[in-house]
Amino acid sequence: MNYFAIIVAGGKGNRMNLAIAKQFLELDGKPILMHTLEAFSQCALNPKIILVLNIHQHLFWEELCSKHDFKVPHEVVKGGQERFDSVRNGLKTIKGKAIVAIHDAVRPLITPELILRSYQMAEETGNAVTAIQPVDSVRMKREGQASEALNRDELFLIQTPQTFQIEQLKKAYLQPYRNEFTDDASVVERAGYPINLLPGERNNIKITYEQDLEMASFLLKKKGF
Amino acid sequence: MNYFAIIVAGGKGNRMNLAIAKQFLELDGKPILMHTLEAFSQCALNPKIILVLNIHQHLFWEELCSKHDFKVPHEVVKGGQERFDSVRNGLKTIKGKAIVAIHDAVRPLITPELILRSYQMAEETGNAVTAIQPVDSVRMKREGQASEALNRDELFLIQTPQTFQIEQLKKAYLQPYRNEFTDDASVVERAGYPINLLPGERNNIKITYEQDLEMASFLLKKKGF
Repeated sequence: MNYFAIIVAGGKGNRMNLAIAKQFLELDGKPILMHTLEAFSQCALNPKIILVLNIHQHLFWEELCSKHDFKVPHEVVKGGQERFDSVRNGLKTIKGKAIVAIHDAVRPLITPELILRSYQMAEETGNAVTAIQPVDSVRMKREGQASEALNRDELFLIQTPQTFQIEQLKKAYLQPYRNEFTDDASVVERAGYPINLLPGERNNIKITYEQDLEMASFLLKKKGF
Repeated sequence: MNYFAIIVAGGKGNRMNLAIAKQFLELDGKPILMHTLEAFSQCALNPKIILVLNIHQHLFWEELCSKHDFKVPHEVVKGGQERFDSVRNGLKTIKGKAIVAIHDAVRPLITPELILRSYQMAEETGNAVTAIQPVDSVRMKREGQASEALNRDELFLIQTPQTFQIEQLKKAYLQPYRNEFTDDASVVERAGYPINLLPGERNNIKITYEQDLEMASFLLKKKGF
């Protein structure tokens, strides 16, 4: 079997009000994105890595790789308008039978072990979407109605990697883009495939806000990197 | 109108594997719990503060207050088996018409401004439950079924304070305890009152895991305390 990883670096840093996109921010001496690629390169299945990056960032990334003497092999592909378009661009480069993990560039604390489990489950069952359960109570509120409590035991906060047999992705990404496509699982589900959840890691945080970078730095030190 | 705050410090520190309960951990030179009480004491409505604490921690807390020369006025009440029982013990001490905010001891970054808005909304509408929207995609999975995507725009992660007119709480806390009572809103909803959501603050985090303390420390510094 062939294993691929599509790393999606869509961020323009808007939520942090940054001039630099989040995936390039330094974490423990190197860009977040390098931590992410290293985790995949350390996975026992040795996946081929496809990095989807805004065309205006390709040169900058090359310079960063050279500056940090970054040697993890990867192919760089042009990003699209929406995350959906970026993933589709990444998929186009994959031919033949494969298992494909799709992962947020800004989740640098992902472990090679969880990546491995994700590939194994997807190979056996069709897909594997990592998720953790919420610590907080959760409510649903529809327009014009009172809110209602949901059963926390049945709820899952979705992370990445989200890993699929290529057939599912190829079929799913033929669909036109919809607003409710907030992740790959929602695209694949819409194409008719049931989605399987894989227990994620609480430390596999997404760097979204400034404080997340502090937290990631603390978690990295704890891990003893 | 009389305003009260019930601060619930149920934690025994299990999730952090700590000998000391979370609310007593030091954040920027003093116990988390002191930050929490100070925020309420700074609210413009000057609420009376009731601290519900495990009986075995009362003496330790007294010593901490004396050591830190902590002067925020508050009444200490004995905690119960479940959080539900602790809140009920706190409620017993309140007589007559009142608006009551219930707040987790381990959410020290709550602002006096959000507390104020919470009292105002509860006074006008019956209750106000602070909540933020999730950054992640969310799925629901029922036993034996495939997971299904939920509409993130309709979902709210519930925080505290949760603030109520006393009549709602008194009626709600007459009910026997149920497993699905994960917060005060779920207890009050079960008693027949619709729950109103108030936009919360992303920084109003609950100190649950070790890394949350690092994050809180960073957020405090940023705030310029």
